[in-house]
Amino acid sequence: VFEKYGFSELQTPALEYKEVLTGKMGEEAERLMYLFKDQGERDVGLRYDLTVPLARVMGNYPNLTKPFKRYQIQNVWRAENPQRGRFREFLQCDIDTVGTANINADLEIIICVAKCLEILRFRDFKILINDRNVFTQIDIGGTVSQDELQKVYRSLDKIKKIGEEGVKENLIESGFSADQSEAILKNANFLKENNNIVLLKKRLDKLGLKDKYVFAPTLARGLDYYTGLIFEIEIEGYSAGSVAGGGRYDELIGMFTDKKIPAVGGSLGFDRLIDAMNQLNLFPKDLITSKALVLNLPNFEEKALEVADKLRENNINTEVYLDSNVEKGKQFNYAEKKGIPYTIVPNENETFTLGWKNENGEIEKVENITFDNLLEHLRS
Amino acid sequence: VFEKYGFSELQTPALEYKEVLTGKMGEEAERLMYLFKDQGERDVGLRYDLTVPLARVMGNYPNLTKPFKRYQIQNVWRAENPQRGRFREFLQCDIDTVGTANINADLEIIICVAKCLEILRFRDFKILINDRNVFTQIDIGGTVSQDELQKVYRSLDKIKKIGEEGVKENLIESGFSADQSEAILKNANFLKENNNIVLLKKRLDKLGLKDKYVFAPTLARGLDYYTGLIFEIEIEGYSAGSVAGGGRYDELIGMFTDKKIPAVGGSLGFDRLIDAMNQLNLFPKDLITSKALVLNLPNFEEKALEVADKLRENNINTEVYLDSNVEKGKQFNYAEKKGIPYTIVPNENETFTLGWKNENGEIEKVENITFDNLLEHLRS
Repeated sequence: VFEKYGFSELQTPALEYKEVLTGKMGEEAERLMYLFKDQGERDVGLRYDLTVPLARVMGNYPNLTKPFKRYQIQNVWRAENPQRGRFREFLQCDIDTVGTANINADLEIIICVAKCLEILRFRDFKILINDRNVFTQIDIGGTVSQDELQKVYRSLDKIKKIGEEGVKENLIESGFSADQSEAILKNANFLKENNNIVLLKKRLDKLGLKDKYVFAPTLARGLDYYTGLIFEIEIEGYSAGSVAGGGRYDELIGMFTDKKIPAVGGSLGFDRLIDAMNQLNLFPKDLITSKALVLNLPNFEEKALEVADKLRENNINTEVYLDSNVEKGKQFNYAEKKGIPYTIVPNENETFTLGWKNENGEIEKVENITFDNLLEHLRS
Repeated sequence: VFEKYGFSELQTPALEYKEVLTGKMGEEAERLMYLFKDQGERDVGLRYDLTVPLARVMGNYPNLTKPFKRYQIQNVWRAENPQRGRFREFLQCDIDTVGTANINADLEIIICVAKCLEILRFRDFKILINDRNVFTQIDIGGTVSQDELQKVYRSLDKIKKIGEEGVKENLIESGFSADQSEAILKNANFLKENNNIVLLKKRLDKLGLKDKYVFAPTLARGLDYYTGLIFEIEIEGYSAGSVAGGGRYDELIGMFTDKKIPAVGGSLGFDRLIDAMNQLNLFPKDLITSKALVLNLPNFEEKALEVADKLRENNINTEVYLDSNVEKGKQFNYAEKKGIPYTIVPNENETFTLGWKNENGEIEKVENITFDNLLEHLRS
């Protein structure tokens, strides 16, 4: 899907310098980073996400053609308390478009990520959309500084988890007065879509995603670097958290280049997707396994190896039992345990016996067939 | 290829406990490991290979059906001095068969690895074969202990690099007398194939790999854990090192399980393969990229997004230029720079202009065609 939309693959090293990893992500993220000294006494760490390494690459290679559209499918590491849908090592699938502030880039990211979910056969998902600038509507009886605004939307982001009372307490802890906190919460109920969101929605409708998105004025996302549109995707019936998210970050790459370079990206959490697919039974039944096991019996050892090789050449995944001194029954057992549906016993005169279990669990056999017959059976 | 031979995928975490990683690999390997303390003050490290993590998994899950055949395609980390074909992070592709000492398992590993090279279109490769037990033939006028034998084959392994004189010096440094070293070198020239090698060769011939292998009596491989057959594959014309290797290690898994469990495996070095493929021009010319760029012009913005989406639905990788306020020439330029062969300009009345460069570098065009025409052109 990523390649269909014109994204090309990038891979980056697992280790980055500490100074690259930290300072752009917020304190909470920093606490979860695996940082250490390498053999050259350099401060390094395991990548925490795929966005910061991308920003570093853009800084190292300023002459890349822009807009630069890359996808990256690699692991990231976070020293979390592991729990369902939350891992210390997990695979992220990211797409980012660097070098344009045009809303079409934001739109494309959202659509491309949504298409991935459709291809995995998720039907009931919801794209939550917001814009960091929506929060500037919050008026607590005076001007709110950038710093204070950050505290506000970090608190509001938790509203689903801790409720309005929780958010209020959180705001007070962050230094707001009780009255201010009250006002913020009240204001939050009346946050309105800005022009950015309105245009985005119009185009999403046009491109077949009507009814798939919702304006989510309290959505903030944890990371500090977002500057505009933000989104998250939730799957109905899957409660371990959002499976995708992203947003616009027009300031991050500038930290590696001196020059401000706008960018927008999205990320799919692979492991959560697997978890959700399992829960919703979206995996096909017959995941790749061997189709046939060739039994290995005394005096037919080389025969067994040869027929297996010939089957593979004909694109049949085939195992050959490796020990000819193991009794026949145990070899059949092995096929059964591993879920290999067909067994093949080589006979005299270049013929074979093919066996399998029918729908009622009864063993069926065809005996003394030629290799061509065997192939025909396995293909049908 | 791995799946064709009945190997199933396994992935393991990047981090393992230090005690898992060290102690089985030899000192040289240990010096190259990235070891550190995690947030819980546990001694951990990045995996150095894929064999030790497999052995650990076998220890953790003793009831896995055996023979257990797994493939694993993941990165490993080594604090090397980077140079051509030698990286600090690189991708290994391993297959291993655990739970049988039968030589058919060794045979299958070698054939499966060789098949991978054939599929990548390497023609002139050589499989160097040896058996660690071949070295027991070395007689220096008395019994040689296991420990001494290890020193012997470690030195002999370097013969290609440092020559006979170098090996002799190396042996003397390891504690052998000058006379003993002389005797070892002389003996090394007369090492003979053992029964294991003879049988292996016979079956390799039978399965179509005649002329692809050679008995290499001084091949030792660096790691301590091998106990029987060892092999390496070299590609003619590629000098940065072997691209694959492996062997039998019947003692390693026992260190994690109390019980001795025989095993054999092989590993392809992905990054070296890429390097060798580049050098030998084995990559196809048209690696995946976008087939078409849809230009984004004022008043045709949504049109552009829509036609791109329709092309993708028809399996044409399509980019749409994201900014409608960038002049046409620059948009054509972008396609050129990115090597996108076709450009599409949306016109009035649901028609399009398709452009491309012909073999002589001249621009050709078809104007005012319908979407169906457009699709036909792009498919042909």
